[in-house]
Amino acid sequence: MPEFDLAIRGGTIVTASDRYTADIGVRGGRIVQIASRITSAAEEIDASGLLVMPGGVDAHVHLSQPTSDGTVMADDFASGTRAAAAGGNTTVLPFALQEKGKSLRACVQEYHAKAEGNCVIDVSFHLIVSDPTPQVLGQELPALVRDGYTSFKVFMTYDDLKLDDSELLEVFEVARRERALVMVHAEGHDAIKHITRKLEEQGKTAPYYHAIAHSEIAEREATHRAISHAQLTDTPIMIVHVSGPDPMEQILWARRRGLKVLAETCPQYIALTKQDLAGLNMDFEGAKYVCSPPPRDHSSQEAIWQGLRDGTFDVFSSDHAPFRFDGPDNTGKNNPNARTSFKWVPNGIPGIETRLPILFSEGVSKGRITAERFVALTATNPARTYGLYPRKGSIMVGADADIVLWDAQKTAPIRQEDLHHGADYTPFEGMEITGWPVRTILRGKTVALDGAVTGAPGDGAYLARGPSEFV
Amino acid sequence: MPEFDLAIRGGTIVTASDRYTADIGVRGGRIVQIASRITSAAEEIDASGLLVMPGGVDAHVHLSQPTSDGTVMADDFASGTRAAAAGGNTTVLPFALQEKGKSLRACVQEYHAKAEGNCVIDVSFHLIVSDPTPQVLGQELPALVRDGYTSFKVFMTYDDLKLDDSELLEVFEVARRERALVMVHAEGHDAIKHITRKLEEQGKTAPYYHAIAHSEIAEREATHRAISHAQLTDTPIMIVHVSGPDPMEQILWARRRGLKVLAETCPQYIALTKQDLAGLNMDFEGAKYVCSPPPRDHSSQEAIWQGLRDGTFDVFSSDHAPFRFDGPDNTGKNNPNARTSFKWVPNGIPGIETRLPILFSEGVSKGRITAERFVALTATNPARTYGLYPRKGSIMVGADADIVLWDAQKTAPIRQEDLHHGADYTPFEGMEITGWPVRTILRGKTVALDGAVTGAPGDGAYLARGPSEFV
Amino acid sequence: MPEFDLAIRGGTIVTASDRYTADIGVRGGRIVQIASRITSAAEEIDASGLLVMPGGVDAHVHLSQPTSDGTVMADDFASGTRAAAAGGNTTVLPFALQEKGKSLRACVQEYHAKAEGNCVIDVSFHLIVSDPTPQVLGQELPALVRDGYTSFKVFMTYDDLKLDDSELLEVFEVARRERALVMVHAEGHDAIKHITRKLEEQGKTAPYYHAIAHSEIAEREATHRAISHAQLTDTPIMIVHVSGPDPMEQILWARRRGLKVLAETCPQYIALTKQDLAGLNMDFEGAKYVCSPPPRDHSSQEAIWQGLRDGTFDVFSSDHAPFRFDGPDNTGKNNPNARTSFKWVPNGIPGIETRLPILFSEGVSKGRITAERFVALTATNPARTYGLYPRKGSIMVGADADIVLWDAQKTAPIRQEDLHHGADYTPFEGMEITGWPVRTILRGKTVALDGAVTGAPGDGAYLARGPSEFV
Amino acid sequence: MPEFDLAIRGGTIVTASDRYTADIGVRGGRIVQIASRITSAAEEIDASGLLVMPGGVDAHVHLSQPTSDGTVMADDFASGTRAAAAGGNTTVLPFALQEKGKSLRACVQEYHAKAEGNCVIDVSFHLIVSDPTPQVLGQELPALVRDGYTSFKVFMTYDDLKLDDSELLEVFEVARRERALVMVHAEGHDAIKHITRKLEEQGKTAPYYHAIAHSEIAEREATHRAISHAQLTDTPIMIVHVSGPDPMEQILWARRRGLKVLAETCPQYIALTKQDLAGLNMDFEGAKYVCSPPPRDHSSQEAIWQGLRDGTFDVFSSDHAPFRFDGPDNTGKNNPNARTSFKWVPNGIPGIETRLPILFSEGVSKGRITAERFVALTATNPARTYGLYPRKGSIMVGADADIVLWDAQKTAPIRQEDLHHGADYTPFEGMEITGWPVRTILRGKTVALDGAVTGAPGDGAYLARGPSEFV
Repeated sequence: MPEFDLAIRGGTIVTASDRYTADIGVRGGRIVQIASRITSAAEEIDASGLLVMPGGVDAHVHLSQPTSDGTVMADDFASGTRAAAAGGNTTVLPFALQEKGKSLRACVQEYHAKAEGNCVIDVSFHLIVSDPTPQVLGQELPALVRDGYTSFKVFMTYDDLKLDDSELLEVFEVARRERALVMVHAEGHDAIKHITRKLEEQGKTAPYYHAIAHSEIAEREATHRAISHAQLTDTPIMIVHVSGPDPMEQILWARRRGLKVLAETCPQYIALTKQDLAGLNMDFEGAKYVCSPPPRDHSSQEAIWQGLRDGTFDVFSSDHAPFRFDGPDNTGKNNPNARTSFKWVPNGIPGIETRLPILFSEGVSKGRITAERFVALTATNPARTYGLYPRKGSIMVGADADIVLWDAQKTAPIRQEDLHHGADYTPFEGMEITGWPVRTILRGKTVALDGAVTGAPGDGAYLARGPSEFV
Repeated sequence: MPEFDLAIRGGTIVTASDRYTADIGVRGGRIVQIASRITSAAEEIDASGLLVMPGGVDAHVHLSQPTSDGTVMADDFASGTRAAAAGGNTTVLPFALQEKGKSLRACVQEYHAKAEGNCVIDVSFHLIVSDPTPQVLGQELPALVRDGYTSFKVFMTYDDLKLDDSELLEVFEVARRERALVMVHAEGHDAIKHITRKLEEQGKTAPYYHAIAHSEIAEREATHRAISHAQLTDTPIMIVHVSGPDPMEQILWARRRGLKVLAETCPQYIALTKQDLAGLNMDFEGAKYVCSPPPRDHSSQEAIWQGLRDGTFDVFSSDHAPFRFDGPDNTGKNNPNARTSFKWVPNGIPGIETRLPILFSEGVSKGRITAERFVALTATNPARTYGLYPRKGSIMVGADADIVLWDAQKTAPIRQEDLHHGADYTPFEGMEITGWPVRTILRGKTVALDGAVTGAPGDGAYLARGPSEFV
Repeated sequence: MPEFDLAIRGGTIVTASDRYTADIGVRGGRIVQIASRITSAAEEIDASGLLVMPGGVDAHVHLSQPTSDGTVMADDFASGTRAAAAGGNTTVLPFALQEKGKSLRACVQEYHAKAEGNCVIDVSFHLIVSDPTPQVLGQELPALVRDGYTSFKVFMTYDDLKLDDSELLEVFEVARRERALVMVHAEGHDAIKHITRKLEEQGKTAPYYHAIAHSEIAEREATHRAISHAQLTDTPIMIVHVSGPDPMEQILWARRRGLKVLAETCPQYIALTKQDLAGLNMDFEGAKYVCSPPPRDHSSQEAIWQGLRDGTFDVFSSDHAPFRFDGPDNTGKNNPNARTSFKWVPNGIPGIETRLPILFSEGVSKGRITAERFVALTATNPARTYGLYPRKGSIMVGADADIVLWDAQKTAPIRQEDLHHGADYTPFEGMEITGWPVRTILRGKTVALDGAVTGAPGDGAYLARGPSEFV
Repeated sequence: MPEFDLAIRGGTIVTASDRYTADIGVRGGRIVQIASRITSAAEEIDASGLLVMPGGVDAHVHLSQPTSDGTVMADDFASGTRAAAAGGNTTVLPFALQEKGKSLRACVQEYHAKAEGNCVIDVSFHLIVSDPTPQVLGQELPALVRDGYTSFKVFMTYDDLKLDDSELLEVFEVARRERALVMVHAEGHDAIKHITRKLEEQGKTAPYYHAIAHSEIAEREATHRAISHAQLTDTPIMIVHVSGPDPMEQILWARRRGLKVLAETCPQYIALTKQDLAGLNMDFEGAKYVCSPPPRDHSSQEAIWQGLRDGTFDVFSSDHAPFRFDGPDNTGKNNPNARTSFKWVPNGIPGIETRLPILFSEGVSKGRITAERFVALTATNPARTYGLYPRKGSIMVGADADIVLWDAQKTAPIRQEDLHHGADYTPFEGMEITGWPVRTILRGKTVALDGAVTGAPGDGAYLARGPSEFV
């Protein structure tokens, strides 16, 4: 009987700090041996010439979330985790969204029902707190944290999600007390509404103006405000989807003062610019790129790269929030409201499947970051940040055998027709990528191979999490 | 017939940039000649051995304002301007406060009624906008600016005055369009309320805790937010009563980015600390020092001095907001609510009469600033900032003969019994002062002499103002 | 008999802080009266429609200095002060240069001999210390300071002038002890030589490469080094001819740390760029613009303007160092050495006559600085910085009647044919100027009128100086 | 026959990014397997309860170096590497010092002769360039780099070692061209000499005044200068033995501008202060702590910790430079010159054996840094920085089996009597340490065990190196 269920032979293993060549032996879904040469295995994979990296942990993903205008999100847990697997990921962290007026615990149960039996890779939920009633703050959140929901997100904008400053402070207090990590969507609501109104008065309603309304100033101001609240309540926070140098400056300023402020950025801030929202001549094609914060400009991209290199950013996530452009009924380009103003265009773009190839190609292949840093940003840090380590996030004996094999030389463009997500387009269409995942292995089982998904719904498990290492 | 109504002979004239010895000849209330030796005058003043400086322009003064809990302010226009005159001032700028639900224009008329015939020195009103209805924004404010009310103040805290971010942005837009200057009270309302609640839960209700609740962080955050709104709307703003290095850092950061942000500080931030609010053993005596933002600590004072020297601060005002400590009925120390929590203590301290002696003594006499800088901060800059220049703010031919004679050697403590304000105490009691005003001259008439007020109600006129030089 | 020797009527008087309209009465070379209307005078000047400003104090001027390669400077005290007068100046501060191996005192006497009887306007000498022997440090410098030579300049580059770090520290110590102000030419000698050698190896010898060799980095490094020496010895210093944002950053950094570091800039850093050194197609015409530090680029100019506005710069001087381009014998374009390498081109450009018009036109007329700031930078601050105040530097009773009348509307280009300096070209040829001096008055006597010099050699006096106000 | 030469079982393996429990199998001096459970080995080590970390790489060590005054260094290669082994190290990088006037290549041969057959652990040489003749720059350095001497150190101070700025620039150019890394001792020579002279004049000659003479300002200035030279020549540099926030600020400033500046700090900057140099009442005991730069104060220590945490520092080395205090002949406390002035006290303290325990105890045990960061600073980064990776610096299959077993709970003071170095004292005497190395394994052989050295001279090999990963 072979010693191992699976052998991965001859690849170049990359961790967040090391790079070396060895064989990997897997048994019972875990890595049990790393050696110059391992003995026989039931399944043999030749990884020579390939990078062997921890499977991606996408820490910021929206699946099956309802939107305020009734638009249906283009991915549920089945399609979303299929796409994630194809894109080299083995764990995703979607959100369980509390709708106003509802019990948070009940909402969590609904998301479990949506996920149960449908996931191709492992999942765990962040909570979105949109209605911090005394019941939620005093009872539900503490209990949920103890049950392994150790992170929650708060919004400083969006009419249906926004917390005011008092509520933010209350949620921060609970997070500190319960050792949970708060993720903050930092954009100034009133500022955005103010500019939106001015733009509409001037007839500037095309999707492009979304990028003007969601100004860098509003993002920076809210970042400073969130940091101040965190300082007042002595609570670590994570600023998610940072778009450029303005909020980065605030984050670095906070750290110099000894505050614990983590930061995340996303593919759209290195691969898109606000010019993409202009579509062809300010037409509605720009709606395909509407997300918040919006992508900025080329100098912002350079600042983001600097931050990816120097440790300003801890985590690189997709912020996958997929909508169909040729949507059913009155959605996508068929949405008459969205035609009257950018403010009715649903905010979000698909990216769960392209996150890793984009960062690898633009980062590692172009020499901007090392492969070790790639691993840190996409797997090890997300796992450590959200309480999944050491089970997830690295290649080491004892960890889950969550592994992605990467062909650093493979060159091909991103094409919608090759993707598995539920959106009917990708904002990164045509982008030339050097370096693609060729096999995704979840706890020893190959769930994606050469662009095809080989895993099945139910292969993925739900993960209760411990506290973040940074709280 | 003598050539001049008044001759001021042999003093050392100080302007914001120069210092020299000469005689001054006044006629018709204006300076008409400055010379080595002038001819005869109806009234002769020997200023030899004295500094001859422009009369103080106190740009931040509260008189006859109602408070939300019914406490009566301790100074009306008569007593307030008497005290100001005794303290070396010739112009004060109190506020005309819009109460919520009322027409701003109507409120202005009420304040004119209060002031009319009662002022010992010249006055002009800033407006406080607390209810920016479309009517106020669209009609009243533009008309009032054109009538010479060229500055208005907005509050980011206080339940009855606070504007939310949308309203701030609207007021800023009007200011930019009408070339008015907005003064901002920058403290984060929700943060203050949050800490207040925590403190109350812990039984920390003594006046001292006011200084904890009104945290530096809340002031800094609101300063950043106000600056961001100003940047978004391209509007110059004045941050009033800055208490320490945190908001200063934001202001300097804004200026380095090319934003027009002016700044004011006050005597309480160089002469008091939060320790003063502790009273004797945390007793209620601390209520005498309750103001917002509160005084901070000694290192904050050093930062404020650095800012007074290097141009961070444009203006040094009193923020005079006087209340009686042994108040009538249920006010002051007899206020049962205030005994239950610091949050019911009226915010504000008297300072109109001591502003100039404190800055002169601590600044000029102790070598921290030059006499020229003293003049800039207390007279020239306020006049230029609020549209009173060149009529007010300097000693030069053509200007109003608003002059204060200063005995730089005279030493005496500040004592309540020597003051003329309506408060029954001074927070600066016992402070040793080197350098006192010995004569205040308003348009050629001596309105204060050796600590006694010689002017009469009605000597002061109301001044319509032009636009700020900085908008 | 008329009361005044001279009346200047109806002009707009500008000081460093004020602006107003009045008549000026002069007697015995001094301003004795400023009034709405003065009585009769022997000489009457109608200044209506004109600005009446203090005569320029050019604090950085080279006259009659020998150069190491024998090139003769194009201006002696006669021609230099004539040009200065025509350009609106009433005082200039040239250097008395110590040549290595010589007594400093003896050198000073030589410069007195050169100046004596030849100056059209007032002069005073800074010392250049190039050979700080124990005799110079211990005896000569202290005695010279006591005799009114209260400032000295040191060089960190130039083979024949450069002090090493030990010598700089020694000179700084003497300055602190004697209350003299040290002016520092801050460029890193070895860095310049290193790049020069590299450029020459690549055949890059045209004048343009002077601007590459004298890199911003070398200027910034030396500025930091000088500041560090000043900090170690607790000595105030003046960084002269600052060219751009790199050294400015160091200066501001030092001030934030509480160090007393003054700064000067010059017309070449707002009106020229390194592109000027390229001449026509990298030809030798570029030699007309060779000075050290060299002009930089447009973004540097913007930084300099910001610094002129916000107080980074205290003083605006010409750094006049004139050479003939079509020089006698083997100089200027006829210098065979200079043709082989930029390093043999004498460093310096003429500017004594155009300093004020350039700053007024580019600064005041274009709205970048106020007229008050113009006066501060060109007259009041130089006078205060170098111990000439209150006799020089402002318009006030008791001061010398050193006045320039300025026609803010007069428009004309700068043309060599209109200038009075000894150089045979101006680097600012053709520059359109709005705002010209129309009359220069030295102690009551008109020494220049409508572009013609009316003063005579000997009209100017030598001024012994007191200590700087900033030491 | 057992599969492995050595098994290390059950320990907690720590790398620069990961931590997990596994067995390690060693064969032929290399790590060949890491597994949950390995098979039999010739030698078995039970590491349960211990940390299993890469052997320390001490990248800054002086052994057998002559000093200018003839003092003999207290450690040669035999004693130095013994002490290093006992302290948990498996590789040290001493210097091959070029003496002025000598061929660098010849000097390198001398050091090889000193090391050959004497080393207990592996060694590799940095070069010290003290005489950069054309021969050295043009021939010897390029050849030596190609032979694996890929780093060299330059000094900005010390009479016998100092390069001037021209020489620094030349060496930097060679480094860039040959892909070598330059290590810079950054202290301003003239500044130190200047203060030294002043102190001596005041009779301040005790060892304590060394810490005054070697001022933070001189260190900061030289750091800025070195950075400027690196910028001019586009050369990466390493600033060694950074002592506090002043030079750190310069390094961070440089990185923000995109410059490649690495940084090192040492135990003396977290465990000593300048007060230690005061000895008992300013006596000569302070000489035991004389090193350059000197330790500073407690707030400096805090800044260093911040830098160790946040990535400002890449490498933590000992800067071991041992001298006997009760020295032979006229050295140490018997040195009559050193008694007359601190400037004659040899610069350097022993630390090769205590570097790792101090950082572990003060850093990891006290919660200031993680164990992963400890590994990065003491092993992985030094190996990557100096071209030893992947053979050295981490625990991974294929790497040399250079391993230290660490008992994180073991508590004992540092005592000279327990140490193996050649010095007769330790500056860290009595310091309580929590966490000690209990076994050091070099390429599979235990060279130190429970404080005793079990390795023999000749166990250590010489390592030729590849280029730094950062050039």
